[in-house]
Formats: sequence, structure tokens, C-alpha cells
Amino acid sequence: MKAYAMLEVGKTGWIEKDKPKCGPKDAIVKPIAISPCTSDVHTVWEGALGDRHNMILGHEGVGIVEEVGDEVKDFKPGDRVILSAITPDWDSLEAQRGFPMHSGGMLAGWKFSNFKDGVFAEYTHVNDADGNLAILPDDIDAGVGCMISDMLPTGFHGVELANIQFGDDVLVIGIGPVGLMAVASAAIRGAARIFAVGSRPNCIEIAKEYGATDIINYREVDIVEQTMALTNGKGVDRVVVAGGNNDTFIQAMQVLKPGGIIGNVNYLGEGDYIKIPRVEWGCGMGHKTIAGGLMPGGRNRSEKLIALIQAGRIDPSKLITHRLKGFNKIEEALFLMKDKPKDLIKPVVILE
Amino acid sequence: MKAYAMLEVGKTGWIEKDKPKCGPKDAIVKPIAISPCTSDVHTVWEGALGDRHNMILGHEGVGIVEEVGDEVKDFKPGDRVILSAITPDWDSLEAQRGFPMHSGGMLAGWKFSNFKDGVFAEYTHVNDADGNLAILPDDIDAGVGCMISDMLPTGFHGVELANIQFGDDVLVIGIGPVGLMAVASAAIRGAARIFAVGSRPNCIEIAKEYGATDIINYREVDIVEQTMALTNGKGVDRVVVAGGNNDTFIQAMQVLKPGGIIGNVNYLGEGDYIKIPRVEWGCGMGHKTIAGGLMPGGRNRSEKLIALIQAGRIDPSKLITHRLKGFNKIEEALFLMKDKPKDLIKPVVILE
Amino acid sequence: MKAYAMLEVGKTGWIEKDKPKCGPKDAIVKPIAISPCTSDVHTVWEGALGDRHNMILGHEGVGIVEEVGDEVKDFKPGDRVILSAITPDWDSLEAQRGFPMHSGGMLAGWKFSNFKDGVFAEYTHVNDADGNLAILPDDIDAGVGCMISDMLPTGFHGVELANIQFGDDVLVIGIGPVGLMAVASAAIRGAARIFAVGSRPNCIEIAKEYGATDIINYREVDIVEQTMALTNGKGVDRVVVAGGNNDTFIQAMQVLKPGGIIGNVNYLGEGDYIKIPRVEWGCGMGHKTIAGGLMPGGRNRSEKLIALIQAGRIDPSKLITHRLKGFNKIEEALFLMKDKPKDLIKPVVILE
Amino acid sequence: MKAYAMLEVGKTGWIEKDKPKCGPKDAIVKPIAISPCTSDVHTVWEGALGDRHNMILGHEGVGIVEEVGDEVKDFKPGDRVILSAITPDWDSLEAQRGFPMHSGGMLAGWKFSNFKDGVFAEYTHVNDADGNLAILPDDIDAGVGCMISDMLPTGFHGVELANIQFGDDVLVIGIGPVGLMAVASAAIRGAARIFAVGSRPNCIEIAKEYGATDIINYREVDIVEQTMALTNGKGVDRVVVAGGNNDTFIQAMQVLKPGGIIGNVNYLGEGDYIKIPRVEWGCGMGHKTIAGGLMPGGRNRSEKLIALIQAGRIDPSKLITHRLKGFNKIEEALFLMKDKPKDLIKPVVILE
Repeated sequence: MKAYAMLEVGKTGWIEKDKPKCGPKDAIVKPIAISPCTSDVHTVWEGALGDRHNMILGHEGVGIVEEVGDEVKDFKPGDRVILSAITPDWDSLEAQRGFPMHSGGMLAGWKFSNFKDGVFAEYTHVNDADGNLAILPDDIDAGVGCMISDMLPTGFHGVELANIQFGDDVLVIGIGPVGLMAVASAAIRGAARIFAVGSRPNCIEIAKEYGATDIINYREVDIVEQTMALTNGKGVDRVVVAGGNNDTFIQAMQVLKPGGIIGNVNYLGEGDYIKIPRVEWGCGMGHKTIAGGLMPGGRNRSEKLIALIQAGRIDPSKLITHRLKGFNKIEEALFLMKDKPKDLIKPVVILE
Repeated sequence: MKAYAMLEVGKTGWIEKDKPKCGPKDAIVKPIAISPCTSDVHTVWEGALGDRHNMILGHEGVGIVEEVGDEVKDFKPGDRVILSAITPDWDSLEAQRGFPMHSGGMLAGWKFSNFKDGVFAEYTHVNDADGNLAILPDDIDAGVGCMISDMLPTGFHGVELANIQFGDDVLVIGIGPVGLMAVASAAIRGAARIFAVGSRPNCIEIAKEYGATDIINYREVDIVEQTMALTNGKGVDRVVVAGGNNDTFIQAMQVLKPGGIIGNVNYLGEGDYIKIPRVEWGCGMGHKTIAGGLMPGGRNRSEKLIALIQAGRIDPSKLITHRLKGFNKIEEALFLMKDKPKDLIKPVVILE
Repeated sequence: MKAYAMLEVGKTGWIEKDKPKCGPKDAIVKPIAISPCTSDVHTVWEGALGDRHNMILGHEGVGIVEEVGDEVKDFKPGDRVILSAITPDWDSLEAQRGFPMHSGGMLAGWKFSNFKDGVFAEYTHVNDADGNLAILPDDIDAGVGCMISDMLPTGFHGVELANIQFGDDVLVIGIGPVGLMAVASAAIRGAARIFAVGSRPNCIEIAKEYGATDIINYREVDIVEQTMALTNGKGVDRVVVAGGNNDTFIQAMQVLKPGGIIGNVNYLGEGDYIKIPRVEWGCGMGHKTIAGGLMPGGRNRSEKLIALIQAGRIDPSKLITHRLKGFNKIEEALFLMKDKPKDLIKPVVILE
Repeated sequence: MKAYAMLEVGKTGWIEKDKPKCGPKDAIVKPIAISPCTSDVHTVWEGALGDRHNMILGHEGVGIVEEVGDEVKDFKPGDRVILSAITPDWDSLEAQRGFPMHSGGMLAGWKFSNFKDGVFAEYTHVNDADGNLAILPDDIDAGVGCMISDMLPTGFHGVELANIQFGDDVLVIGIGPVGLMAVASAAIRGAARIFAVGSRPNCIEIAKEYGATDIINYREVDIVEQTMALTNGKGVDRVVVAGGNNDTFIQAMQVLKPGGIIGNVNYLGEGDYIKIPRVEWGCGMGHKTIAGGLMPGGRNRSEKLIALIQAGRIDPSKLITHRLKGFNKIEEALFLMKDKPKDLIKPVVILE
């Protein structure tokens, strides 16, 4: 079969690979829509995961079930399904402890385009189909479905990690697609004011539509100063980190109230240490909790997000700025993500 | 001073009482807007709290601070403040354990018009002013402020007790003012579908505006059958009980999924026992949790709700169907609440 | 193969059945030690689960792995393993939501001797071996291992459901084997005083050894009066229900403080309704939470309990009052459980 | 009155001060036993809190109530009480949010010998007596009572922050008095193995008595290597940090499993940043939560700890290695704490 792969660090291209084989609990799915992720860019051009050879890229997609194993109960060929970026081994000890995303080792619930072939292919293999697939209802477009693979659940997870409570003031650092989903989910998790940090005009526009009450343009103002000014020097109850780098936590801690929580969903790819400012952390005693984690994957999560979309609570379609058509446009979409033209948030490719 | 009181069970009227005295941590507040509560009706005409003599009624209001004690730090005469229905003793053991509403005994955080004179008076006494008052910002109308005393926080608390999670399907039983606030808060707490049980057309209308996706008119259909039909036989993740009676829990349990939670904020005034159906409760093993509680009062809660209103997340003004003007209209407002004309949800009286 | 089965309601006997077949994720295990459970007694002689024909009984045991499916990674023939009473489908939606014991339907994580052949057999089938088996270390006796199948995790779960906090006063109602394990686990979960309700002298003795500070012999005193007397009228913070019947919740509620929790792990086999006393429940507003649930099963839970035994925190061996030897003694052990001689807590049968 | 004070950074001495005055909610207490804390040493000789002039030292003690304000309900002159190191303003917004220790500002619930005169005096002032005092029962020695002021609740809080679950493997870094209390409380919170890091023989001895299963002598072995060796390379579920410095978190993170929690109760007095190792933190995605906080103070907490001591669950008396007698021995006790002779854990001074 044909697929688009990371050939080695810094290099991508079309390859031919054998169609994957289906185990008793697995499914083979034919992707019908995909979306490249910033992670794909980091994986290829920054070598974030180390060297990979001829690994098929992509972990966001929607497809049609082609084949299922004998033990699969709830899915059958022809079903239109979401391919979750995270596909845990649900019987692992980690999953049983509540951390399916770390099944088999830290972050190892993330398989597609990490240590297993991804979804930029004619066919892709899904482990534990019953646990990891979800039917995409007819009233949701396949492009929007791609947002349920990763962007939507990751943004949501930032809000969950920050454990937002009714009436909380929340700072969301970063309003790329994940940060925008964090803004939207903070708004339906009980946040009062939402301060969104970003600079790209299209993202700012959508952040407001998703519920941001204030925009902090970090190119024009200092994040800390501006946050403190907007809160009369009180700071915020919660911070969701969906962008920035290791030093972002310094600012996050500076504006966080005692008893507050930082929820990080930004992949930190470089440097040795995240730095926590001692004094603002209350000399270790300020009850300012630092949480960070890979989003949970799997079927239940996808179904819950679908329910939210169908009930009209959240609308991830605003993320999609570019729609391409045809299997051979995967490369163009990936390079869009790499080059980030001004008007881009997320591209999707409708494969057929 | 003049006040409107419960004279005895079944009887109300205007009385004269001494102006309350201010202790070192207290405030004396002059009400400028009040709203009667169904509890006032139960207290007087059903004797729900037992006999009371010449007890000033009312626990929902907004006022102007008249006087504060020497130890009060954050409020001063002239401040426009919300009178919270629940005014805990914050240093009590119960409050330290996280249950301020039960400070000094079960439900004893509820003082106004329970065992202490209420707010239907020229002046009212507030214990622990720093802990229990909250400034009502200029941009919020005094009538709307009255909704922050009880209706809004009680509806919210139902949602908190039910511990709604992202994408949950929620049944809200009862769409009087508290139930309507429960619908609105479920929608900003992450609920997907919200099934609202009620029959009054004006309430149904507002329930939809507040985010109900489906209405179950219990006069036309069976609650359990309809809920199961709407959920393809799966039932709901959460139930908020804001109406009904002891038997309502039977229905709530019948539609609740294993692992679900019932959050009750309905005052159950009659009967010996609430009945939990054994089989549907999984023979005691179904992880269907039953929670119920008086809303938390106090300043922090009021400030959080104000923040939500100011951020545009919730709009309690829709509850107010009747606005009366003048201190002497308190009686009329109470009888409106008692007689519940078709178009009534909540009346407020602007006193000056 | 030979097995001991429920032939129909009220009747048990030895039967011949085909040896179970092993699916790709499954294991076939040869039991080497088993213990009958009160549930087996209810199942057979009270028909608690309805009619069953030639269903092999038993869900507590230790065995040797005989065969594993192709997809099993962590177990191999020859391993000495615990057979958990609850063997969930870990990829089910319920398990993904945190309720594996209800995978596939309420209580349906309980398979052995419920709707699937149990462990009183030469061979038994375990679904999802990687998720549901656990190695029993050499330093733990097979008889003690049987206590890890059900008694220990169920008692623990009562404590988890009651969510005991440091310094809480706890009432444990029922000190059969599950209640005794609840006492022992309350003591290592931070309880201060533990009031244990029971009457059998041998159980009382062991309750004290496990950490009960006070015994309430319900045959001699009234549970409610005695609990209130022992707590100076304050009542308790938590109640674990491990015995009694539907009416036990009335007493539990009467002694529970506002803000308290009842954690039930007693299977309620009869009657239509559990009754919650309205006034003591604070008219629905007392924050007295009622929780109840089947214990979680699976490998992680078993491994955690093994770790506690190995660290010397808990010693379930005290439960075992009778040790029988030989496969043909299964019947005698079951009838011991049915007839409950005075000196019995739990019998185990070492099969080989 | 006579008192022992910090005169300036690096200098202590006896001073005369006016006896404190009693506000309406306050109490004046005459200390009868005190204990110096390592914090007193840091405050004086490291200037950890900045400059202080003639501030009376000490925040651990037991005393006799001398006078109470008019609004105090539950205490009266003559009562023998615990002086909690942390005495929050219970009606503050922070306390209402669940963080009393930060009432009025981060760490500002800590008043004694921080920004208010402490307990090394003939009389000491306690704000909010009803909320912050607790009766010390006759069967608990005044010296042991001093351990309830700070050492016991701080050690416990480390375990609470780490949110230890049944069967968890726990690393406790530091076995001074706080770390020892953390070991003891981990053992009654459900920990399985407890790895205690320390080197002083007397502390090691007591750590074992309190429930440590393994000792890691950091002077002889590497903490990380040894922890990984003891856990077969799996690492631990929880870390309680009760010693070390900013770099300790690097080691803590290296041995922590995904999904684990670090609970810090060590005051970090120096340096700009705490460093979190990026890779071991899962590049921000490993669900390794970092929590740290000042212990909660107040009456309820003290009463809960008293209940644990009375129930025989924990015995802080083992911490007390030196007992001095007489008010004038306060200085000697403080210098013992400063000089830390080999056999010292905690000294107490019985003042009368």
C-alpha cells in the first residue's frame, strides 16, 4: 500500500509498505480524512522522538473499518470511525490505575507515528478496536472528526488537569489549535474570565468566539504584568499551558494564586529542566500544583466529545482553515503545518 | 423598625421589631431588594421548620451596609451587598471540614428566616460580615443580585453534587427557579445532553434557552420511559433533583447508569423515608451514589457567581418574571410565590 | 473434567463438564486452593441470581496457569496466580469510565459463578489474563491467596467508598470476613476510632486485633444508642456497611454526621426498597452521601493487596478458621459456609 | 512579660514585652510547654523570612488559657490547649476556598514567629480561639502535645499532598521529625513499602519503628539507583519530600512512575528555581504531579490528630529526645535545634 512517511530525521516522502495485519482484537481501517499535527513536524524536523526510519506519519484521522478481528464485538467493516491519536492497551496496569495513556510505559499509549505506523496511509492498524474506535455519526463531517482525534481531547485535558471550578479566572497560554480547544472547554467547564495568550489575529478572533474574555498579546505586553493588571493584582485561579517552552512555567507560577493549579498539555521538546520559581512557588509551600499529561485516548473519550459536539456545546470546525482533497495532498498539508502560513490553524485532507 | 414576619404557622403579617444590634464581626444591612422563596412558603403554610413566632421572613436580598463591627475589615457603610441565604460560622468545626452550611449543626448555616430574623425588614443582621457579604458590582441589577442569594447557588450546587463530567448526559428533575439554574449550570459544567423534566410552558421555554436539549413533560409522558427512550436504553450519567418528592429518587435511580450520581438540592419536607429501589441500585453494589446538600453560602461563593455573570456565562435575570416596587409590596410578592400564577417564576421587590 | 456446581436453585452436586477453551487473550487455570463465599450460598439456596443450571460455583481461588492464549504477554503455564472474583472486560466503556466491575452491564464484571462457570473445578477459564491474573508470590500461602480474590478487596472497597480521612471515627456494621477486612483496612487508611458491630466472639476477637477500638454487640445494645453514647452524641464521620439488611441504612444514617459518607459493600438480596430516613438525611440537604459498589477486580488491585500483605500492613490469614485438604472437600467447605458453625469465619480447601 | 526573641538576623535574646491584648474572638494563652522548630533556626540564623526585630520566637506549644474574648464560645480560662503553628483567619476567601493556611496571602496563615509574636513567652495571643485552639486531653502529655502544633500535622500533610492510595510504594525523602511523621502517617494511609531516605542512626531506628520497610542511606548509596534497584526498575507511586533542597526534586522525579505525585512539605529557603527534569517529567506529559504546601492549621486538624493518638494509631512521643525543664531553658532548647547533636530529634521544654 501507499503511505506518507518519515524517512529519517529531517526527511519525508511517499513509500510502499505491506498492508497491516489484523489481530483478533484489532481493526484495519482505511483513512478517509486526516490532519497533520505539529507533533508530526517536531517528529520529523526536530527529531523529537529520536530517529525513525520509514515510519508512516499521522495520528489524526477518520476512516472506514475494512476488517476486524474475531474477538471484536462492536465494530464491523463499513463503520465510519474516529482514529484516536492515543490507543491504549486497556488491560495494562497503567490503564487500570487510571492512566491509559501511559500503558506499557510513559507516553506509550501514543502509538501512531510514535513507535508504530500512523494514519497517512491507505490502511492503518488499530489495536483493541472495541476500546479505541468510536463511530463518527453521520451528522459530523469527517474533517471535524479529525479534530476529535487529538486537538479537541488535548485541549480538554488541559482543562481537566487544571481542574477548573465554577467562577475561576483562567489563563490559557497559547492559542494554537490545542489552546483554542482549551479556551472553548474552559468556557463549558465553569470558568469565569478566560485570559488567552496569543498573537495571531485569526487565532485571537476564534479565541474570543470560543469564550475568551480578554486577550493578552505577548508580543505587545508582558504576560505577567498584563495578567496581574487585569486581575487587580490577584492573579488567576488556574493556568492551562498549551504553548510556550520550559520558561513559560515561570510566568505561569508568577500569576497563579495560592491553591491554584497549572495544567500543562504542551509537549516540551528541548532543554534539561523546567524551572519553577522558588519564591512564587511559596518556597514549596504555596499549594500551587503543577500537573501535566498526555490526553487520554480511547473510545469513551471520543464518544463523550462527540456528544458535546452533537449537543452544540462545542464546535471544533472553526479550527479548520484549510481543506485539501485527495490522498496525494497529504504532503502539502504536512508542509502547511510546518510552514504555518498566517491564516493557518489546522488543515485537513479529505482523502476520497 | 418595620418587618414582614411569620406570626405563627399559617399566618403572616407586618410587625414592629427593634433594629438589630451589631457585634464586632457583624454588619447591619438595609435591604433594597428582596425575593421570596418557596422555602418561605413551606415555612409558613406547611410549618416545615416547626412553629415560629414573629420571625421575620426572607433570605434572598440585596442591601446597603448601614453599620459594621469594629473587627470587620473589608466592608463599610454604603457598600451595596448581596445577602447570602446561608451565612455560616466560618471558624466552626463543620466549616473547617468543608461543610460550612452545617456550621453549628446540620443545616444550621441557614439562619435567615430559619432560626433568626430574615431580610424582609428595614434592617437585617449579618453574622461575620467579612465572611458572608459580597459587593454587588454596579453593573448587576439589585433584582438579579437577589438571585445570587439562593436560586443561583442552589442550582449550581446540584450540579456540583452530581459532579458532572465532560460529555455527561444529565437529567434535571424540576425546572422551577432552582432547577432552571441547575440546567444553566450543567450546560457550563460540561454536560452534553440535558433532559429537563417539567410542565410549565414558561419554564420549558427558559430551560431550552439555558441549554436543555430535551424536555420531558411529566404530565404527558413517563419520566423513566421517556429518558430511556431518549438515551437508547442506556440511561443517564447524572441526575440533578430540584423538584418532586421522596418518590422521585425511585425514578432517578431507575434511569441512572452504574457509576452515576444523583445530586439532590430539593428540600424534602414530608414523609418518613426516601426510598431507593434495591434492584436498580444494583443490590447495593451498582456504584450509584446518592448525594444531597444545602448550598454553601458565604462570600467566596457569591463572588464566584458574580464573576460568572459578569463574564456572560450565565444570566439569572430570566428567572425574574415579576418586579414589584415598594417595601409594602413584600406581602404581595410572598403571596405570588404561594399562589404561583401561571406566568410566575420568581418575583422580586425593589424596596426603594 | 470434574466440578462442583449449582444444579438448580437449592441443589448442588458434582458434575462433569468439558474443559474450557482458551481464547487468544485468555488463560486456563488449574485451581490449587479455593474458598466458598457467602454469595455462593445465596446463589444456591436463596436463588439470589435467579435460576442457574449446572453452573460451576466458586469465585475465590488460587491456581496454576495451564494454558494461555497467543496474545497473552505476562503470564505463562506454571505461574501460580490469584483468581480474582471480578474479572472485567478492561476495554469496555464502563471500565474506561472507572467502573470495570460494571463492564458490559451493572455488576457484569462479576462473571465466575454468576453467569459463567466458576473455580470449583479442575480447570477454570479466565478472560483477559494479562488484565485479570496476578502472580501470587512464593511467600504467600495459597490459602491466604484465596482471601485476595474477594474478602480482602471487598472489605477494602468499603473503606474506599466511605472515603475515610485522617482521624475519622468510623462505624463498621458487620464483622464477618468482609467486615473484618474493612476494620483492618480502615485502620490503615487513617481512621481514629473504629466501632465494630457484631456479636460472634471469634469475630469480635479478630476485629480488635485488626484495629477496632470499640465493639458494639447488637444483640446486647442498640447500635444507634451505643454509637451516640460512645461519641458523646456527635455520631461518626463514616460508616462502612458490611452486613445487615435494607433497614441497616436507617441506623447508619442516624449516627452519621453531616458531611459523612456511608460506604456499602453488603449485597442486598431481598426487599423492594432501601429506606433513607428523611429527617436524619437532613431533608435531603445534609451532605450525607450514600455510596455502594461491587469491588473492583483485576490484576492491579490484586498486586496492590499483595504488596500490602508483603509489607506487613495487613494479615488476612486470621480469617481462615478451617483448612480442608483435597478436591473432594469442596462440598464440605461450601456446607460449612452455609451452616456457619460458631467457630467459622472462612474455610479454605487446598486442592492438591 | 518575659519572652525569648529574635533580636535581629543572627541574634536572639531575652526581652521584655507588654502582655498581648485579647480581642473579642481571641484568647491569651500561657504556654506550659514549647518546642523549637528548625524554622526558628532558619528564621534567625539564615534570615529566611527577612529582617525581624524583637519578634518573639516559637510556634509549637501547649498552654493554659488565661483569658478569652467576649465572642469566644468553646474555650474558657484554665483550659489546657494546643497552640497550632498555623492559625488561619477562617472567614477569609482563601479559607473558604479550602486553603486556610494562605488566609490573607500566601503562607500568611502562619503567624506565630513569622510576622507576629510567637509562643516563647509568658503569654501568647491566639486569633480566633474557637477556630484555632484545641483541648489537649489529660491523657496526652504536654510535651507530646507540642508535636501536634507542627511536626505531626506537617508530616501528615506531606502524605495528604502525595494522595497515597492503598498499596502504593512511597519514597520519603528526609527523616528529621517531619519526615518521620510522614513515614508514620504513610503507614496508616495505606502505603505498602515505604523507602525512607536518611543517614542519622537514631532517625533510621525510629523510621523503622514507624513503618519504613527499607532505609536508603544517601551517604552510602545513590537515592535514585537504590530506589530503582529496590523496585525492580519500576520506581515508586508517590514521593513525600521532607528534606533536601531544590535539587531533590530532580531525584524525586527520576524515581516517580507516570501517574505519580510528589508531595512537598520541605521549606525551600534558598536559590532561584526548583528544577524539574524535562525528560523524566515526560516532556510535560507524564502525569507526574508536583504538589507542595504548608500544613493546614486550626482546631479541627488538631482534634483529628489527637483522636489518632488516642486511638493508638500514631505515637509522636518517639520524636522527643530531649526534655528540659524551666522557662529559662528555652534558649538551650533553641540552640540544641541549631547545633543538632547526634542524638537529637526534637527537644521540648516543660515551662513549669
